Amino acid sequence: MNDEVELRLKRLEDRIEIEDLIARYGPVVDSGEGTALADMWARDGRYRVGAEHDLVGAEVAALTEIPGHQAYLTRGCGHFLSAPTIRIDGERAQAVNHSMLVLRDGERFVVERLSANHWEFVRTDAGWRVEVRRNELLTGDEVARSLLGEAALGW
Amino acid sequence: MNDEVELRLKRLEDRIEIEDLIARYGPVVDSGEGTALADMWARDGRYRVGAEHDLVGAEVAALTEIPGHQAYLTRGCGHFLSAPTIRIDGERAQAVNHSMLVLRDGERFVVERLSANHWEFVRTDAGWRVEVRRNELLTGDEVARSLLGEAALGW
Amino acid sequence: MNDEVELRLKRLEDRIEIEDLIARYGPVVDSGEGTALADMWARDGRYRVGAEHDLVGAEVAALTEIPGHQAYLTRGCGHFLSAPTIRIDGERAQAVNHSMLVLRDGERFVVERLSANHWEFVRTDAGWRVEVRRNELLTGDEVARSLLGEAALGW
Repeated sequence: MNDEVELRLKRLEDRIEIEDLIARYGPVVDSGEGTALADMWARDGRYRVGAEHDLVGAEVAALTEIPGHQAYLTRGCGHFLSAPTIRIDGERAQAVNHSMLVLRDGERFVVERLSANHWEFVRTDAGWRVEVRRNELLTGDEVARSLLGEAALGW
Repeated sequence: MNDEVELRLKRLEDRIEIEDLIARYGPVVDSGEGTALADMWARDGRYRVGAEHDLVGAEVAALTEIPGHQAYLTRGCGHFLSAPTIRIDGERAQAVNHSMLVLRDGERFVVERLSANHWEFVRTDAGWRVEVRRNELLTGDEVARSLLGEAALGW
Repeated sequence: MNDEVELRLKRLEDRIEIEDLIARYGPVVDSGEGTALADMWARDGRYRVGAEHDLVGAEVAALTEIPGHQAYLTRGCGHFLSAPTIRIDGERAQAVNHSMLVLRDGERFVVERLSANHWEFVRTDAGWRVEVRRNELLTGDEVARSLLGEAALGW
């Protein structure tokens, strides 16, 4: 196969794989599957949620066991993510998107959390994995806005 | 053309086509176009919405004529879907995502429904079509969570 | 490279580039980066928001300076867009999707706006850019629904 064709196919396949990885987060976390959740991250990957959580490696899998998360699951919840903007550089990649945590509230649903997300990915032997995900509530302060700004500035 | 190139191009094209098909659902149903809606499904395709609806074939087109749906349209509504995770196996495919029905409520909008979706697709002579879509409200019970779990478990 | 391979790769790359452009809108506008915002549009591109705004060229960059937008940013906001359906025809393209403006409201968040979007793109020397974006609130009247209907009717 022509080298240029291989390169362009690979770039497209990388993009699709990373899109799909991000798209799995909501279904995985809302079904409470901790093992599948951990498998999205690299072995020593990290998930920082504001000042609340800073999970590394096996702690990511344990996220679904946190009492707060279990309470969301039994009440009815959806982690709803927007389509990401993605930048791939060889064996590493970044993405930025929004997410909402939507909870059942009687007969309706409410938006409990609205966050900015910055993702860093690494290509492993098993495919693309999350190396660091940072999630910050959009409360109007600079922290969350600067996460989004990384995409704004064209990386 | 090289067989491997053909295979990889086709896989990417299949993915994009299925993404686009899912992305059409919201615009189609919110504009009330029943014919376009039915055209998204295979001829004998099925759309199961919890215990409320189990539509087959031409009944899918009639969904937009249901009085409840007409009331949504005149009130102001959006069927808002998240980017799906997709798995393609030859002539069939599956996808999982979240959806929200957002309704106008005076000067603002409210989340009336939050659902899990599991989609099955079939490749037809006219392109990919929905064979079965299941939609379950995320009320905290096991049914909706198990739909999402199909993606969690890596299929 | 085989002509057909080039054509199919280009079509896939165009699609991905337009998806990414749309996905940048939320992060860019929520981080308040007017220059990055203007760079998403063609030089004389246009952004029509209902009867409220009809911005052309440099006015698009100034959108982030509007007092109403600044108030959203300091309060905490997210412009949350759904994955688009896209149609590409040579040097031009169209897309349709939904968007929500979600605002902080004390400890929670509310959906302040729910809109239909119709996008027109043009291929420039610097890549794909927005030529016209129309955004209409989904209040139940025909205007917003007809924007969505453009995708419903298969273009």
